[in-house]
Amino acid sequence: MKAEIITIGDEILIGQIVDTNSAFIAKELNKIGISVYQITSIQDEKKHILTALKEAESRVDIIIVTGGLGPTKDDITKHTICEYFNDTLIQDNSVLAHITELFKNSEHKILTKTNVQQALVPSKAVVLHNQNGTAPGMYFNKGNKDFILLPGVPYEMEALIKNKVIPKLVSTYNTPYIYHKTVITQGVAESVLAEQISEWEDNLPTFIKLAYLPNLGIVKLRLSAVGIDRDEVEKAVTKEIEELLSQIKDIVIGFDEDSPEIAIANLLIEKKQTLAIAESCTGGLIASSITQNEGVSAFFKGAVVTYDTSSKSGILDIDKSIIQEHSVASKAVAKAMVLSVKKKFDVDYAIATTGNTGPTTGNSSSEIGTVYIAIATPEKVLIEEFNFGKNRFKVIQRAKNKALQLLRKEILRSK
Amino acid sequence: MKAEIITIGDEILIGQIVDTNSAFIAKELNKIGISVYQITSIQDEKKHILTALKEAESRVDIIIVTGGLGPTKDDITKHTICEYFNDTLIQDNSVLAHITELFKNSEHKILTKTNVQQALVPSKAVVLHNQNGTAPGMYFNKGNKDFILLPGVPYEMEALIKNKVIPKLVSTYNTPYIYHKTVITQGVAESVLAEQISEWEDNLPTFIKLAYLPNLGIVKLRLSAVGIDRDEVEKAVTKEIEELLSQIKDIVIGFDEDSPEIAIANLLIEKKQTLAIAESCTGGLIASSITQNEGVSAFFKGAVVTYDTSSKSGILDIDKSIIQEHSVASKAVAKAMVLSVKKKFDVDYAIATTGNTGPTTGNSSSEIGTVYIAIATPEKVLIEEFNFGKNRFKVIQRAKNKALQLLRKEILRSK
Repeated sequence: MKAEIITIGDEILIGQIVDTNSAFIAKELNKIGISVYQITSIQDEKKHILTALKEAESRVDIIIVTGGLGPTKDDITKHTICEYFNDTLIQDNSVLAHITELFKNSEHKILTKTNVQQALVPSKAVVLHNQNGTAPGMYFNKGNKDFILLPGVPYEMEALIKNKVIPKLVSTYNTPYIYHKTVITQGVAESVLAEQISEWEDNLPTFIKLAYLPNLGIVKLRLSAVGIDRDEVEKAVTKEIEELLSQIKDIVIGFDEDSPEIAIANLLIEKKQTLAIAESCTGGLIASSITQNEGVSAFFKGAVVTYDTSSKSGILDIDKSIIQEHSVASKAVAKAMVLSVKKKFDVDYAIATTGNTGPTTGNSSSEIGTVYIAIATPEKVLIEEFNFGKNRFKVIQRAKNKALQLLRKEILRSK
Repeated sequence: MKAEIITIGDEILIGQIVDTNSAFIAKELNKIGISVYQITSIQDEKKHILTALKEAESRVDIIIVTGGLGPTKDDITKHTICEYFNDTLIQDNSVLAHITELFKNSEHKILTKTNVQQALVPSKAVVLHNQNGTAPGMYFNKGNKDFILLPGVPYEMEALIKNKVIPKLVSTYNTPYIYHKTVITQGVAESVLAEQISEWEDNLPTFIKLAYLPNLGIVKLRLSAVGIDRDEVEKAVTKEIEELLSQIKDIVIGFDEDSPEIAIANLLIEKKQTLAIAESCTGGLIASSITQNEGVSAFFKGAVVTYDTSSKSGILDIDKSIIQEHSVASKAVAKAMVLSVKKKFDVDYAIATTGNTGPTTGNSSSEIGTVYIAIATPEKVLIEEFNFGKNRFKVIQRAKNKALQLLRKEILRSK
């Protein structure tokens, strides 16, 4: 069973927004054994939409379209789909009642003419109620092909996929089982890793595919398998992963949706130990990425972002003479920061970062891209110097990833 | 002149990664007057790649392909393109020299067999040297169609696009001028805004298109115009934007790549005033999003992330009795946090957040999604209560955006 996702919106084709909807939909379809054959992004333009629908219909069984269902004049998908199915718009009273209710409870409270028009739906469509917005989803069946239209606003689309589309597809189709398992490694380059596991890779059964996904110091290894029997497929993948782990256990930080942040969370929650952070050049990114995940209050006490040089003395009580003697981006300052934050928050582990992310060198005497990372453990302090290049965004991200990698190593070491 | 972007990689079609490359390429092509007609994402599968190339060749003039050029076995694009152009691979000595050099300077230092193979390129290709990685870009001309192949690693692809592809296309084609200008608004819902500016929208000249892009409390209005004369096109768009601003000036926070963070930065740098932040439920996101931008040390002093309840007393000296009496997520605690952080960092403005982001209520007695935001100005403190829903990620993001919106209002007010 194959699907195509069509995302409609000029904003995608001019590069104004990144198409995150397709990734979400693809992941959900995969879980129920429907593979996505192609993702096609096209303009808000009638002729192009009609052509894309026709081409997709010739390629796949299920066509999911997102975008262009909003209340404004640039949204033309609903009218175009009417033309495609030779249909007309009629008012759906349950949609109108829902829209009226939504606006009664919103901070805007004004039900506009434009909103009322969103209750118009093609007569041949089954309405998929959108609890989070005014534009309903729609489902069409044409012979043995299914067409599903969804609004482009991510959380509206996501709720519709989870609550309406997936249950409908599960009840309609009988599909093979697709299984993905991803092993997340940190600290070894893609090409080196590839040589290291080359023999294992060559011996993978043909129904298991391997992919390498490198990004900012992290390499993900994804195994994908297709089969009829769920247990057999999962067992085969699990066996291969066990073999892989026996070869590269040290650099594996987790699986699937895990991240350096989640690896740290799991370790510290298990050990009932705590963490605090002092950030200068990373500007709060380490704290922010840790607190994106739920349940972190069990180990994460807090952070200070001493961005300004004076705040390093003011908030962390760092002796001004250390800063003057060694410069604000230095091993000595990283060490003083990590010791101070560990004491202030009374934690088992602490991280500190100070460095120069560019584009100018500012107060610091070090090169752009230089970052000092300090880790304090219950037993000791270690400080390392890195250079993460000249791109500000990448320097901050890589510093965050590297700090979490160093911390993980130390937590494991003191086990 | 029309282009199609083809991104190759199973990781896109199973939803493991979001395709950010297409957005980057589309934006760069737009700047030189080449519009992207379609973006197509397909699997690492020979037949599918060949079909996609053929279809794209029939639709557009320029075909840009990314992905599948890496050193590992799942990367098949180079071999497939050889088949498409009836070509063979030959060793390129300048690429080999570059790869050897790269590895001499890297932290890995080991030049593997796999890396050496990356110096093999199709004989008909013009090599586009990749300064940041081992896989070279490639350029093919076939009649009046151009094919460009690039590695999928974002920063390698980005440098190749900017330094090699765009200069090559600019020297080859004579294209119309495409101009986009985006007005960024905050605080009014899309449908309400659409009614408010309906008359203005109806009177736009036909060569200017308008699009609405709503996301997490922010609505972007994008005007796109195409024409021959660059000055005329820009002048026409500027005139329409002036008219628009006269109607909705209060809610406009910036243009194009601006964000709530950049709006705040511009205001505070202009006024030579300073900012510090105390974050509880937002966990460092406000500080982190401010410090993503360069030049912020001019106004941003720092932040504290008092995630744990005890750290609110320990770091911000908040009276424990206030927390006990009002609960940790309360107006009283937000007020105490904002006053304390303002004093500690000795700044003109401060933000504080405390609330409950879920999924469990934890230490707080308030509902999931409830967030208290306090803003301290040189003259006063204001505190507001919000509910941002039940999705943890969205609650944190919306709280960040709302806090910056409230701060902006207060800075403008005290002008």
